[in-house]
Amino acid sequence: MRLLDIYKKLRSEIADIEAVMEEAVRSEHTLLTEASLHLLKAGGKRIRPIFVLLSGSFGSGERDHLIQIAASLELIHMASLVHDDVIDDAATRRGQPTVKAKWDNRVAMYTGDYIFAKALNLAAEVPNPRIHQILSRALVQMSIGEIEQIRLFFEPSQTIRDYLLRIRRKTALLIAVSCQLGAMAAGADQRASNTLYRYGYNVGMAFQITDDLLDINGTEKQLGKPPGSDVRQGNITLPVILALQEDSLRHELLQELKKIQHSEGRQDTSRFIDMIRASKGLQKAESMAKQYIDKALQAIRSLQKTQASQDLMAIASFIVNRNF
Amino acid sequence: MRLLDIYKKLRSEIADIEAVMEEAVRSEHTLLTEASLHLLKAGGKRIRPIFVLLSGSFGSGERDHLIQIAASLELIHMASLVHDDVIDDAATRRGQPTVKAKWDNRVAMYTGDYIFAKALNLAAEVPNPRIHQILSRALVQMSIGEIEQIRLFFEPSQTIRDYLLRIRRKTALLIAVSCQLGAMAAGADQRASNTLYRYGYNVGMAFQITDDLLDINGTEKQLGKPPGSDVRQGNITLPVILALQEDSLRHELLQELKKIQHSEGRQDTSRFIDMIRASKGLQKAESMAKQYIDKALQAIRSLQKTQASQDLMAIASFIVNRNF
Repeated sequence: MRLLDIYKKLRSEIADIEAVMEEAVRSEHTLLTEASLHLLKAGGKRIRPIFVLLSGSFGSGERDHLIQIAASLELIHMASLVHDDVIDDAATRRGQPTVKAKWDNRVAMYTGDYIFAKALNLAAEVPNPRIHQILSRALVQMSIGEIEQIRLFFEPSQTIRDYLLRIRRKTALLIAVSCQLGAMAAGADQRASNTLYRYGYNVGMAFQITDDLLDINGTEKQLGKPPGSDVRQGNITLPVILALQEDSLRHELLQELKKIQHSEGRQDTSRFIDMIRASKGLQKAESMAKQYIDKALQAIRSLQKTQASQDLMAIASFIVNRNF
Repeated sequence: MRLLDIYKKLRSEIADIEAVMEEAVRSEHTLLTEASLHLLKAGGKRIRPIFVLLSGSFGSGERDHLIQIAASLELIHMASLVHDDVIDDAATRRGQPTVKAKWDNRVAMYTGDYIFAKALNLAAEVPNPRIHQILSRALVQMSIGEIEQIRLFFEPSQTIRDYLLRIRRKTALLIAVSCQLGAMAAGADQRASNTLYRYGYNVGMAFQITDDLLDINGTEKQLGKPPGSDVRQGNITLPVILALQEDSLRHELLQELKKIQHSEGRQDTSRFIDMIRASKGLQKAESMAKQYIDKALQAIRSLQKTQASQDLMAIASFIVNRNF
C-alpha cells in the first residue's frame, strides 16, 4: 500500500512533530494538559503534517521550521475539532445536570482557545511575518465556515455553491495553507508555494466531498458509527443537495428531513440514506471529487518531478478511492 | 477631569482605531458582521488602545502600526468578552427552546473565534515576528486564566495567590502587553518597552481588583446592575477571600455562598454583600490595589519625563479612585 510507504518514510519527522505538539500543549494547568493530551493520543491521519513535509521538500530551509509549522497546523485542526464539540443547548438538555456537565461547553471552548493559541505560538517562532499573515487569514475563513455551517443546518434550499464555499473554508483552505506554508517555511520559491497551495486546495475539496460521501455509502463497520451522522446533525452535504434536485425524490426527501430535524437525533435515518443512495447524487458528487483531484494532479505536474511530487500525486489519487 | 483630557487629546487616533476595528470585522457574512458591529458600537473605555498610544510615544515609529496594534488588542479584548458570554448549560435551561436559542452558544463561540482571528490579522500586518510571539503567548495565558476561573467558581478554599494569578492572566497581562507592544511597534528601545510592560501589569492588577471591589461596594446606579453579580456567577473575588479569613464571618459566609450556588442565580445576594462590606476585606483589597499602583508609578518614574509619562501616571491614579 503506497500511502503507508509515505508514512513510513516520514516516520522520524512525524515522531518529531508529535513530540513538538505534545510539548506545546503541556502547561502547569492539569485539566488543560489532560484534555489536550487526550486529544493528541487519540491520533488522527496527520494528513496536514504530511502535506507540510512533502511540500517542504521543494525548498531547502530549516528542518526545525518545517516541524514547527506542521505541528502548528495540526494543532489548529485539533482546536477546530474541539470547538466542533461545543454542542448546542438542545443536545445537552438530555444529559444529567452534573457539575461536570455544567462546565462542559465552556471548558471545551477554552480548551480549543488554548490549543489555538499554542498553535499560534509555534508558528510565531518561525520568524516570517508573511507566514503569520497567511495563517491568521485562514483562521478568519475557518470561523466564517463554521458559522455558515450552523446557519445552513437543515436548510434544504442551500445550493451547491453554498456547499462548496463552506467546505472550502472548513477543510480545503487549511490543507492548501499546509502545502503553501510547508513550501514557504522551507524557502521554496513563490511559484512552487503557489502551485502547492493550488494542489492542496483541490485535494482538500476532494477530501471533504469524499468524507461526506462515505457518511452515506459507508458501512457502520467502515465508519465506526452508523451512516447518516451528517444529516442527523443537520449537515446537508453535496449528494443530498444533488438528490434534492431530482423531482421524483424531492418531496419525500424534504419530509424525511423535517422528521429528522424535529426528532433531535432520535429519528432513524436509514430511509433517508437509502433514498440518497438510490439517487444520482452519489455518482455526481464522486465525479466532482474526481474533477478536483484532476486539478490537483495538474498542479503537481507543473512542478519539477521529484519523489515528493510523486508522493503528493499518490496521496491525491488515494483520497478519492479510500473507504475509511 | 484629567482622564477626559487624555481622551480628547487622542481623539483623532482613537477615531482611526475605531475605523480600523470596524473595517476589520466587516465580512461578507451578515450575521458575523452584525454581531461584531453590535459589540463595537456598544463602546467601552478603550483603555487598551489608550495604553498602546501613550506607550507608543516613547518611540518614533509608524503611526499606522500603532493604530493596527491598538485595534488588534482591543479586538482581542472584545473577543474574550464574547467567549465569556458562552454560558453554561444550566443557565440557558431557563430560556425558551427557540431555534435561535439552540444556536446561541455556538454562534457566540464562533463570533469570538472570528474576532480573535481578525485581531491576529491586524497584528500580523505589522512585520515584527517578536510582536506576534508576545501576542500569541498572551493568548495562551488568557485561555488558562479563563479555565482557572471556571474551575474555581464557588470554590471557598481558593487562596489570594489563586486570585492574583487568575486576574493576572485574565486582565493584567493584556494591559501589560498593550503597553509593551505599543512601545515596540513604535520602535522604542527595549528598556522602555520592558518598563512599560511592568507599568501595564501593575495597573492591570489594580484595575481588576478595583473592578471587583466596585461589584461589592458600588450602588446599582453606579454599576448599571445590582451589586454582587460576581458571586452570583460563582466568581470569588479578593475581598471575599479576605473576608473568609475572618473567624467571626467565615461560617455564615460559607452558608450564604452555598445557598447562592444552589439557587442558580435566584438567591438574593444582599445579605452576603452586606457581610463582605462589614468585613475588613474591602479595606485590605483596596490597600493591595494601591500597592500595585505604587509599583506602576515607580516604573513610569524610571522613564524620561514626558507628556505621555505624565498621562500614564494620571491614568494609574485614576484607576483606583474611580467609581464607575
